[in-house]
Amino acid sequence: MANLPSVSTLLLSLEGSTLRVTINRPETRNAMTDEVVADLHAVCGFAEHEAGLRTLVLRGADGTFCAGGDIKGFRRSFETPLPEKGPDPIAEFNRSFGNFLVRFNALPQTVVGVIEGAAFGGGLGLVCVTDIAIARTDTRFALSETGLGIPPAQIAPFVVQRVGLTTARRIALSGARFKGDAALEMGLVHYACADEASLEATLDRVLGDIDRCAPGANAATKRILLDVGTRHVSQVLDDASLAFARALRGPEGQEGVSAFLEKRSAKWVERT
Amino acid sequence: MANLPSVSTLLLSLEGSTLRVTINRPETRNAMTDEVVADLHAVCGFAEHEAGLRTLVLRGADGTFCAGGDIKGFRRSFETPLPEKGPDPIAEFNRSFGNFLVRFNALPQTVVGVIEGAAFGGGLGLVCVTDIAIARTDTRFALSETGLGIPPAQIAPFVVQRVGLTTARRIALSGARFKGDAALEMGLVHYACADEASLEATLDRVLGDIDRCAPGANAATKRILLDVGTRHVSQVLDDASLAFARALRGPEGQEGVSAFLEKRSAKWVERT
Amino acid sequence: MANLPSVSTLLLSLEGSTLRVTINRPETRNAMTDEVVADLHAVCGFAEHEAGLRTLVLRGADGTFCAGGDIKGFRRSFETPLPEKGPDPIAEFNRSFGNFLVRFNALPQTVVGVIEGAAFGGGLGLVCVTDIAIARTDTRFALSETGLGIPPAQIAPFVVQRVGLTTARRIALSGARFKGDAALEMGLVHYACADEASLEATLDRVLGDIDRCAPGANAATKRILLDVGTRHVSQVLDDASLAFARALRGPEGQEGVSAFLEKRSAKWVERT
Repeated sequence: MANLPSVSTLLLSLEGSTLRVTINRPETRNAMTDEVVADLHAVCGFAEHEAGLRTLVLRGADGTFCAGGDIKGFRRSFETPLPEKGPDPIAEFNRSFGNFLVRFNALPQTVVGVIEGAAFGGGLGLVCVTDIAIARTDTRFALSETGLGIPPAQIAPFVVQRVGLTTARRIALSGARFKGDAALEMGLVHYACADEASLEATLDRVLGDIDRCAPGANAATKRILLDVGTRHVSQVLDDASLAFARALRGPEGQEGVSAFLEKRSAKWVERT
Repeated sequence: MANLPSVSTLLLSLEGSTLRVTINRPETRNAMTDEVVADLHAVCGFAEHEAGLRTLVLRGADGTFCAGGDIKGFRRSFETPLPEKGPDPIAEFNRSFGNFLVRFNALPQTVVGVIEGAAFGGGLGLVCVTDIAIARTDTRFALSETGLGIPPAQIAPFVVQRVGLTTARRIALSGARFKGDAALEMGLVHYACADEASLEATLDRVLGDIDRCAPGANAATKRILLDVGTRHVSQVLDDASLAFARALRGPEGQEGVSAFLEKRSAKWVERT
Repeated sequence: MANLPSVSTLLLSLEGSTLRVTINRPETRNAMTDEVVADLHAVCGFAEHEAGLRTLVLRGADGTFCAGGDIKGFRRSFETPLPEKGPDPIAEFNRSFGNFLVRFNALPQTVVGVIEGAAFGGGLGLVCVTDIAIARTDTRFALSETGLGIPPAQIAPFVVQRVGLTTARRIALSGARFKGDAALEMGLVHYACADEASLEATLDRVLGDIDRCAPGANAATKRILLDVGTRHVSQVLDDASLAFARALRGPEGQEGVSAFLEKRSAKWVERT
């Protein structure tokens, strides 16, 4: 495996085929500053080409997932005069956050989010681009942007994709604050755990489940899932049939089918 | 603010930046007649250009939201012979109801529906185009059209958007009758309240939440949310980044960010 | 009505306007072999042209809905060398299963699935293309493909359409096993029944509900619902308005509206 990227705002730790990524800016409650986004981009660059990396666990240091955007940075940016020509740097920076969400959403790894403390604004957006999200019931969530006078612009499409338009309207247009149980009910997260012990036990169980899935098959599946709705279903099915044939003829398909018929674990299963 | 439109089937009342719209045809249980639809169009025409209007509360008089289509009108329309040439007036009137739903769905205001008594057919469609819907648990809901021999034609897309295809199939193809708790569970409404007092308290709380959101930011957010799925996500994100920059450089963004950093309420907060 | 198709892997039984289809390969736990898919295609061919057929009830023999793909067949197929030219037969067979799902999904009848025992892989895909699914709480569900080293390729789009992307990610990328209550909660099925008696009572009630809906109106409604999201909403609404006019001017609309105004049952109601 290549060397881990050099980053200053994240803690990275590789355990077998799992990369643990911890946002580590507790002094700003892990807000999405330019530096954090740049460092997460570096993690994407690393992960996109590591076929041996199966799972990515994203969380925040000191019991807070991510408290949202960098509000002091927002003030600095509108206090900076517009350049005489060229695009508005505020729009450009905002758009680049959308690019990051698109990229992170499409990582070939199965991405597990561990959501503690708070997930506001951009932090809530980040929850939306994980594959499996495990929250504490006492985590506080809010799409708080319009209370600041701004739209949750780049986040909105991922929120709609995650919880549906109906729920997105309510939480985006009322700034509603809610906790882990409500996040579970609306489908923003997949598990709500009452305490640390149950959170870690759920995480272990989910990681064990992912380990029983073939890594290449999971990556191919994720591509198909994210493809749905972007093109005509017949094109999605065409490409999916090629991915199926590749997988079945490849080492994973042959091993998986043989292991099943021989009633044994497939070779890719690490944990038990 | 411009004068309120002159309408005969609706009660209109302006309180600060909130417009209360009450369908007032209790003798037909507030059915969607041509007149009611025309009057609601007039309300749209008023609201679309009133930047000072933030919230619209829609309900029905005498404790019934809307009992559906105008079934006697349906009989009159098929008893009227087809014109010798030109389009079928039944199709044209039906299509114009769809235009109304599209228009009402896209109002720049945050629209709160108060759903009491009954929401059948077109009334259920109307629930689907509110941003936040608060129902009584004893409200009766049904997509009753196919029991009358007709499809819920213009309503269907909004029902799918609201509750998803899976639930839409069940309720549209079995004419299932259900009440407020089931409507909450399927995501048709956002709150189900056991009695009048709790309904009004929930409405007050929701209106207070909306008041803490900047009106222009809410309008921009609603546009982005409704845009999702109609174009490629990269186009949605491009436009959203321009809306973000406009908002952050505009009076709402500057006030909202400053108020947050100064730990005070923003100027747009009316209620507390 | 035309003769029932001649099939070897299905039990077919016609009762009034309801066709009961039972997958009858208990020795393979009703797995989706080539023969079963071919026979289900034959049923589609029959049903698509039978305007008198209103409802289709799909279940599996011996208390098992469908245990998934034909895994021994998978092994045979990768052990067969690739032909020297032309497309890969594995991709072609896989794609044809997608064609079947598209076709079955779009049947003009209202399709009720009775889901007992197990619904794995392709069986879970089959659940996704029913209009109304009634499960036993002890039914075991899993999107088990990636544990076999292959993606749930043709199934994935229907799973996303059924339960949304958020839930689809979790169940597809972790191979999570779950039972009827969880299937109900995620919207994969519409009812979860604790025992056989309650399952059959629910089925009877649902069939009675469908019988109160006009068959042609249900078929037109299903077309509109499945159309949503495939084209611009204004085109969906245009076509829907024509379907509405056809229905209202046709025998079902005239009978349904008259029956309603005369406070009697419409003629199409068979059961009571």
